[in-house]
Amino acid sequence: MTEALLFIVSSPSGGGKTTVIKSAMARLENRGFPCHFSVSHTTRSPRPTELDGVDYHFVDRGEFESMVGRGEFLEYAEYAGSLYGTSRREVLGKMDQGIDVFLDIEVQGANQVKTAIPDVVKVFLYPPSYEELKGRLIHRGQNSPEAIRRRLMWAEREFSVAGEFDYAIINDRLDEAVETLVGICLAEHHRSDRMKPVLDGIRQDFVLRLKEDVT
Amino acid sequence: MTEALLFIVSSPSGGGKTTVIKSAMARLENRGFPCHFSVSHTTRSPRPTELDGVDYHFVDRGEFESMVGRGEFLEYAEYAGSLYGTSRREVLGKMDQGIDVFLDIEVQGANQVKTAIPDVVKVFLYPPSYEELKGRLIHRGQNSPEAIRRRLMWAEREFSVAGEFDYAIINDRLDEAVETLVGICLAEHHRSDRMKPVLDGIRQDFVLRLKEDVT
Repeated sequence: MTEALLFIVSSPSGGGKTTVIKSAMARLENRGFPCHFSVSHTTRSPRPTELDGVDYHFVDRGEFESMVGRGEFLEYAEYAGSLYGTSRREVLGKMDQGIDVFLDIEVQGANQVKTAIPDVVKVFLYPPSYEELKGRLIHRGQNSPEAIRRRLMWAEREFSVAGEFDYAIINDRLDEAVETLVGICLAEHHRSDRMKPVLDGIRQDFVLRLKEDVT
Repeated sequence: MTEALLFIVSSPSGGGKTTVIKSAMARLENRGFPCHFSVSHTTRSPRPTELDGVDYHFVDRGEFESMVGRGEFLEYAEYAGSLYGTSRREVLGKMDQGIDVFLDIEVQGANQVKTAIPDVVKVFLYPPSYEELKGRLIHRGQNSPEAIRRRLMWAEREFSVAGEFDYAIINDRLDEAVETLVGICLAEHHRSDRMKPVLDGIRQDFVLRLKEDVT
């Protein structure tokens, strides 16, 4: 089919992006589009349920900084005292194998990636309302009231720049949000410019067979 | 949601566009996007199974020409000795009611519509191969060998300009072609620029609720 694509899905924390992305990836895999959810590097300590190499690549600050020095990150940012980054090699390596890559990163990081890979597709996932986002953050149970307030204020700042994203999905009903994300991925793969190599083949074959058939 | 959109789906005859469009419309209606399949005007005689107002609006040449004179067509063209046209009022009337409109028209007509309504989304449906298209034309049974040859040559000419369309779908497996068309329609509705009015509302409400909640 077409070449592999890179999708960024950003959302305020509590926006439910991981569930939406993983469900969409499963449906795309079924349709014959292999997908990879990129695992970030971070300097923060693993939470009890987190596995190295699965949830994050956990590295110390020295290692992270030398990776920065070698230009190994497509994007990186400091958040709540820890560094987070996306490995250039992991993303481009998968894409070279024809695998779509999904990045779950902040708005700032998304802009850095756009500079490095202009063809990236950026999707912003909105919570349906303030109450809904606050409710989800409280429900998670791992955040203090102060941390929840910080996250809500951070969400507001993200919304103000999310208009630069290509697409916007409101995560009101999970099944619809997943269907829309799958739809966006399928649509982007079927843009005429991206389909050109496939279509050129179909056209050339058609012309040839028509000529043989008519004469 | 977002404003209604206009979708053109073009395909060589035998490409199977009617089935794909009608199945996609049913799924979009289920998702809460009302859809209308535009009925063309034509001067050709109805076939035995065709109903006036359902398959086409059947009009005589005099009536068609005075509609042309009054600028009532978004696009029209002559094909195999008969005139075919798309009523501007039918399309814009439905869109004003928030209903997406699907047009099943030729490549030339698509370009005329693009001039009148630049925001139109154009999708070209390719047959998977020469053999497949020829087979479908023969299978229909209503075409002479000479008519089939003409249609195949016409298809080739259409392919050569279809690269200007926004999207390309290869109609290999019906279910996949339908899913892709649904995906394209969902994606187009969720472009950030089209979602702006909805997003502005969400943002404003968020800012307001955050202010009330924090103070």
